[in-house]
Amino acid sequence: MRDGEQTPGVALTLEKKLLIARALDEMRVSVIEAGSAITSSGERESIKAVANAGLDAEICSYCRIVKTDVDRALDCDVDSIHLVAPVSDLHIRTKIKKDRDTVRYIAAEVTEYAKDHGLIVELSGEDATRADPDFLKAIYSDGIDAGADRLCFCDTVGLLVPEKTTEIFRDLTSSLKAPISIHCHNDFGLATANTVTALAAGAKQAHVTINGLGERAGNASLEEVVMCLEWLYKYDTGIRHEQIYRTSRLVSRLTGIPVSSNKALVGGNVFTHEAGIHVHGLLADKETYEPMSPEYIGRLRQIVLGKHAGRSSITLALKEMGLEADEAQTEEIFNRVKQMGDQGKHITDSDLQTIALTVLAIHKEPLVKLEEFTIVSGNRVTPTASIKLNVKDKEIVQAGIGNGPVDAVINAIRGAVSSCAEDVVLEEYHVDAVTGGTDALVEVRVKLSKDGKSITASGARTDIIMASVEAVMNGLNRLIWEE
Amino acid sequence: MRDGEQTPGVALTLEKKLLIARALDEMRVSVIEAGSAITSSGERESIKAVANAGLDAEICSYCRIVKTDVDRALDCDVDSIHLVAPVSDLHIRTKIKKDRDTVRYIAAEVTEYAKDHGLIVELSGEDATRADPDFLKAIYSDGIDAGADRLCFCDTVGLLVPEKTTEIFRDLTSSLKAPISIHCHNDFGLATANTVTALAAGAKQAHVTINGLGERAGNASLEEVVMCLEWLYKYDTGIRHEQIYRTSRLVSRLTGIPVSSNKALVGGNVFTHEAGIHVHGLLADKETYEPMSPEYIGRLRQIVLGKHAGRSSITLALKEMGLEADEAQTEEIFNRVKQMGDQGKHITDSDLQTIALTVLAIHKEPLVKLEEFTIVSGNRVTPTASIKLNVKDKEIVQAGIGNGPVDAVINAIRGAVSSCAEDVVLEEYHVDAVTGGTDALVEVRVKLSKDGKSITASGARTDIIMASVEAVMNGLNRLIWEE
Repeated sequence: MRDGEQTPGVALTLEKKLLIARALDEMRVSVIEAGSAITSSGERESIKAVANAGLDAEICSYCRIVKTDVDRALDCDVDSIHLVAPVSDLHIRTKIKKDRDTVRYIAAEVTEYAKDHGLIVELSGEDATRADPDFLKAIYSDGIDAGADRLCFCDTVGLLVPEKTTEIFRDLTSSLKAPISIHCHNDFGLATANTVTALAAGAKQAHVTINGLGERAGNASLEEVVMCLEWLYKYDTGIRHEQIYRTSRLVSRLTGIPVSSNKALVGGNVFTHEAGIHVHGLLADKETYEPMSPEYIGRLRQIVLGKHAGRSSITLALKEMGLEADEAQTEEIFNRVKQMGDQGKHITDSDLQTIALTVLAIHKEPLVKLEEFTIVSGNRVTPTASIKLNVKDKEIVQAGIGNGPVDAVINAIRGAVSSCAEDVVLEEYHVDAVTGGTDALVEVRVKLSKDGKSITASGARTDIIMASVEAVMNGLNRLIWEE
Repeated sequence: MRDGEQTPGVALTLEKKLLIARALDEMRVSVIEAGSAITSSGERESIKAVANAGLDAEICSYCRIVKTDVDRALDCDVDSIHLVAPVSDLHIRTKIKKDRDTVRYIAAEVTEYAKDHGLIVELSGEDATRADPDFLKAIYSDGIDAGADRLCFCDTVGLLVPEKTTEIFRDLTSSLKAPISIHCHNDFGLATANTVTALAAGAKQAHVTINGLGERAGNASLEEVVMCLEWLYKYDTGIRHEQIYRTSRLVSRLTGIPVSSNKALVGGNVFTHEAGIHVHGLLADKETYEPMSPEYIGRLRQIVLGKHAGRSSITLALKEMGLEADEAQTEEIFNRVKQMGDQGKHITDSDLQTIALTVLAIHKEPLVKLEEFTIVSGNRVTPTASIKLNVKDKEIVQAGIGNGPVDAVINAIRGAVSSCAEDVVLEEYHVDAVTGGTDALVEVRVKLSKDGKSITASGARTDIIMASVEAVMNGLNRLIWEE
């Protein structure tokens, strides 16, 4: 939580830190670095709350090699400290303006001080990759003599490569008598590989963050490191891997940092199959184009239709919806999907159902039809929306207000349908990042649920409000249709 | 371009494919896989256009081991084909329902057919990681005998780890007499490491995509592989690395797939320094917390202030703005920035300037003040906005229409300020992805330019229209102030 929170734009309140710490503990991580106690009184309150939450994990604070830092960590009731000493000449010179011997002396002195006060100490070499290996070993040895329980090698700016990592860790683990951790950054995309390689070469712990959060390109990510070990090396980490996905979602929501759609394991697309050729293979045998079972980390696979959609994937999707189409009908549905795909549009199950029902001439009229909506908003106007819906051939007019025009119109829809669809809940509202101009296409996805059943639907317009209304109306009808 | 285009939601028109191909060629990639000729007539037109664009790179089409695929590739005037044969029993069984011997025979036969028609042939083993190594070598040998120019090892579902990659490539390169390529997927976050490891163990080419696009977690990314080689292994790839960033931006814009802010090398945050401690180190010596010079890939570093902002980074930012503050004033500015940072807000240079000017009691009144704006929109209403601005103490009222309410209000502002700020151009309009509810905070960033000078500004509100107006007004005043 300390390195992860250093992601630009992230600031976690005490409540959020507690939620994340509980999730990590439930997932059975061994150590939670809850923050850096010296930073501020607010930070100390958060760390203390985590330390006193009755978790199984060891709770740790980041400290510089300064006694005051240790005192502030003690104020927070933590079990341990991550005591970080600069070890490269560059960091020694620019950050603390001391020489090697002084750093070595202070590091041992502060280690001893922390041990005298009952803390578990993990002594870390910052920018160890660029340090003189002999000096690094000397500072580690002195630390062990002063009582350090663990050591840590920090690849602070992500310069390690796997071969070098193996070499370093074979050397360190054979010559030092304390367990050593690896702490990697992802500046060149090698954080996971270096972390796993270090563990294979004798490292006993790995520092990771959920979703690979952290400064710059972030730290090694928990999900990748754990799943490499579990799935590729067949090593049982003890982590409750089936909670990985939900923890990733929690952290994304609480930090406000979206997970990119192609992030390994936890990205939105990674268990989504689109290309016709691949979906065909997938249907024949799930393993063909799936590296692992999505269920292992608590996810489900998704079939998305698009430009490359094959007939077989459409047939599967229709079957899952309980619809039967003959060859000519399938061909027509296929062509319409292809057309939408060529425009670069994601085709959700709701879109496909609309197309299919049209082609199959199943005139299931939508139960709720949008007749009209109008919104008024501005800097001196309460965002207000009016909506006219046709529900079971009865006109319902309703007004709503909100935090903004989208909120207002969704509130108006909620009010209008409360008579016929009381328990519909808007579980998620997501807008894809918009890049380009103010007239770019905006894609909105919503997840609606009713009585334990949930569906996703989307809308795409150049107008965010229209796109939001479209998505909610599509989803709503789909939920009611299927009853 | 073939694997990259298989990213769900991506569909490239002929014009876009040409733009990307030209950028890749200019960056000096050796081979461009322009598409899969068998897919459709539209795809063939695109491949043909790329093949006939007079580029230096070898232009290639993907082919299955089917003669018709080769014929369609020939129709496109390509130089080479990437001829892909399934080699694992799983792929052989589920995809083409043949036995090993048949696949081996057909692969050689189609290779020979392609060679007879003057094509360069790269024979690829699909899902090679899960194949019987002896069978893999047999199919490769037969391919070489049939005239294959190159071979390729496809880690189709991303199951390789570095140690295994080294072992495989040492074996293959010592026993086969054709150059061999590596093709990695990033399902466990190891694509870059495996690609670089394969090259170190004798592979002669690597298949990569810009931004790591591709199905699921994507393919190995060009920028990571190239920069690992250039920066960490000190190997000159011949790629014009200073074009990496702009090519990444181009591909993101043309595919509509955003690059995550912490993507190694090309993400928005990776040369952004926020944490006080790190910015302090950075000022002292740029290398301290920077893995490499951003200029090497054609980027600039950015200092962002936030929760962890230190006094030194604020002092630097003020200096860059030409403002001088004494110690007490710096402290006050520091506290206000801290406060905004605690709310999780990114603080742009425009925000900082506003704070600084207030604290320094430099009563530079904004030239353009927002008095009032109102928008009306709906499904049967042309999105319309009215705006009342105070420009140099004169009230200007203007109306605008647009594709949606945001577009309308920005058009109204454009109209209103045309008298005093004629040449202001809205270069970029970006909305961060919104996750959560319809009342979540929406962050808008804009880039405005005037006479060759450009600035960025942001707005953050729960109402997307308010946030957009705020961002544009901030930026506008900043541009005019600085004249």
